Amino acid sequence: MSDHEDEATSAPEQAQAHVNAQRLQSSIAELARYGERPDGGVSRQALTDIENDARRYLIDKAKRLGCEVEVDDCANLFFRRPGTSSLAPVLTGSHVDTQPVGGKLDGAYGIVAGLEILEALNDANIQTKRPIEVVVWTNEEGSRFRPGAMGSSTFVAPEQLTKYWDSVDDDGVTFRDALNNALTQIPDVPRRAQKSPVSAFVEAHIEQGPVLEKAGVPLGAVTGIQSVRWYKVECIGIAAHAGTTPMDIRRDAMTTAMDIAQRLNALVLLDQYRTLRLTLGHWIVSPNSINTIPGNVVFSIDVRSGQEQVLTDFEQSLHEIIASHREARQIKSERIFSRSPTHFPDDLQHLVERACIRATGQQPVKMISGAFHDAMYLAEHCPTCMIFVLSKDGISHNAAEYSSPEDLYLGAKALAYVVTTLANR
Amino acid sequence: MSDHEDEATSAPEQAQAHVNAQRLQSSIAELARYGERPDGGVSRQALTDIENDARRYLIDKAKRLGCEVEVDDCANLFFRRPGTSSLAPVLTGSHVDTQPVGGKLDGAYGIVAGLEILEALNDANIQTKRPIEVVVWTNEEGSRFRPGAMGSSTFVAPEQLTKYWDSVDDDGVTFRDALNNALTQIPDVPRRAQKSPVSAFVEAHIEQGPVLEKAGVPLGAVTGIQSVRWYKVECIGIAAHAGTTPMDIRRDAMTTAMDIAQRLNALVLLDQYRTLRLTLGHWIVSPNSINTIPGNVVFSIDVRSGQEQVLTDFEQSLHEIIASHREARQIKSERIFSRSPTHFPDDLQHLVERACIRATGQQPVKMISGAFHDAMYLAEHCPTCMIFVLSKDGISHNAAEYSSPEDLYLGAKALAYVVTTLANR
Repeated sequence: MSDHEDEATSAPEQAQAHVNAQRLQSSIAELARYGERPDGGVSRQALTDIENDARRYLIDKAKRLGCEVEVDDCANLFFRRPGTSSLAPVLTGSHVDTQPVGGKLDGAYGIVAGLEILEALNDANIQTKRPIEVVVWTNEEGSRFRPGAMGSSTFVAPEQLTKYWDSVDDDGVTFRDALNNALTQIPDVPRRAQKSPVSAFVEAHIEQGPVLEKAGVPLGAVTGIQSVRWYKVECIGIAAHAGTTPMDIRRDAMTTAMDIAQRLNALVLLDQYRTLRLTLGHWIVSPNSINTIPGNVVFSIDVRSGQEQVLTDFEQSLHEIIASHREARQIKSERIFSRSPTHFPDDLQHLVERACIRATGQQPVKMISGAFHDAMYLAEHCPTCMIFVLSKDGISHNAAEYSSPEDLYLGAKALAYVVTTLANR
Repeated sequence: MSDHEDEATSAPEQAQAHVNAQRLQSSIAELARYGERPDGGVSRQALTDIENDARRYLIDKAKRLGCEVEVDDCANLFFRRPGTSSLAPVLTGSHVDTQPVGGKLDGAYGIVAGLEILEALNDANIQTKRPIEVVVWTNEEGSRFRPGAMGSSTFVAPEQLTKYWDSVDDDGVTFRDALNNALTQIPDVPRRAQKSPVSAFVEAHIEQGPVLEKAGVPLGAVTGIQSVRWYKVECIGIAAHAGTTPMDIRRDAMTTAMDIAQRLNALVLLDQYRTLRLTLGHWIVSPNSINTIPGNVVFSIDVRSGQEQVLTDFEQSLHEIIASHREARQIKSERIFSRSPTHFPDDLQHLVERACIRATGQQPVKMISGAFHDAMYLAEHCPTCMIFVLSKDGISHNAAEYSSPEDLYLGAKALAYVVTTLANR
């Protein structure tokens, strides 16, 4: 590390020291009131009245902390704590929308932790060289309007925004109308341009998986985000009566689908595919009747890996498995989505590791993110990194989502260290 | 065969000779007008206005042929051609209701062929010793009201009728109301008791399977009806994020379900199970999302065989397969339906064989029925047999259902021979 960075060390350590566990918990509970459910979960879908109320709450809170508030054309909110220079800011944050039934932490934690850091910096009377901005990205979940991560993806590629306008929710409301409605409700907030210069983006998020809990380590230093490909496989047979059709002349589409599926499942046992995550999650069996032989089966393949080559090899294996099947001509496969892996810069990974060690006294787990995050898009625009906090039982998108107050506190301390360090670079 | 039967041979041959192919086709087309669809199919569900109109048409036609018409408490219609004695009648017929989309022949053929025989007997001036009754059984398909075969099953077990009363269709109409409505519309038709004495029941039906077409033989002599058992298998896993959950700690319910399914499918290759028909037709995958590991899978098993022991062995194999699975404690299986096989009396099978040979000049295929029919219930009450007519491509419950006019004519000739023979016994 440079002398410059060593000089700044005291500020990050002070910021860390002023993170307040109690205050963080109160803030999480306050935000969770917007969309709270009797089962402890939160229902706060993007740009609904409830989410707009939550945004208003966050704006008011940020203003009380002394922030300048701005909004962009995709309703991404920016809460700016000025720096001593006019250099590009360090951004931290996440999203405030949830799945139809979510928990208190997915997305919300990254925002609340960001605001906690600003409060800690205030308390410690620390001035940073660069401004620090806490950001609220719009519609990350993609459950009300598809696709997800509209806010972060249009921030880095503003020309995408008009493509999302016609996305409709289940009630027929367009994203454009919901967006205009949300913007209308905050006339006091000045507009800013998208794709503004950013020196770095840091996202704190719950893991939403079981890796940290299994390792018994509270924090994870995220190395990047897995690449993913989605496929649709269709097996065509002939629907026929279960009673009248002899076995030897059946064309059972489900038998074919299961043959393919089992051969795919066997791939993950091969050393070549040890980093592959394979999920066959969505099945449509037609006519789906107890006494009719399935005539058509469509199933989905979700494959992920930190190594793009593994997915390329998988695709080759998929084609070979289908081509070698006796029903090959009755099997169609189609890649319907793909995204290359994201690798966070080594120096930021090392900074996150160091921050986690200072916060917890132990080495974090270096891990790839299995899920998508706004950080995936920001990484196209600026140096980006992520901190993961242990999720109990790996559960998320569920009212039972939980991380302990202690672990959430440690995550915020690590975030304070990283953000303050970057803001003085 | 007895001298008595030889004496009567001439009447069956005369009846056969008077079956009129043209008239049979006209009758099929006339009945098909009730519920006809632009695609050539027929939509005529049980006790709907359309089916009630078809019943009225059949009553009027039977009266024109000189029949006495009666109806029982389940709206089964009986068209009686008197005999020279008061002995118990020979019954022939089938059902007039169809699946939501059915063809012109399933059920309808058995009724129309029965009326054609009465017309042939009239034309030939044949008096039979026993009365012959053409019967229309109510709600065989079981698509509007569950279960199927309500008419034939209550005819042989009248105490069942009140159990069916509360069955409702998709619009909330009870079977009881639909039944009363149908009976109210034919006030001129006298009521008769159920479970009346029957000397024999003969049902002509399209095969609804591919066996006859594969053999290149127009008619089948049915030996009985397969036994069937239905099971529900539930595999319990843990739904989790496709991206964040490492392969080695997943609890994928679909993987478990496919393991079980593939081991079941492998059974049918064993000699022990050569008569088994196994169908895994109904699948419910939860949450059924492309990027979520399946947390729960329920699938159905439909097994059929002419030998009850084969199904008993299968059930044992099913339990062993589940018990030996590493996830055994997370797999539940339940038998939800079973029906023992029906064996038609040997002498009636032989009579049907002889009738088919006389009609076609070739040996019929001796075959078990894979599907249920009203004959299954009648067999509990009286000597019963069935004649199958070749179904093109084995297709049924579909607008594309088809049997050639020639084959339908041959089937009616065989039916005429069997019914006339039995009516003179």
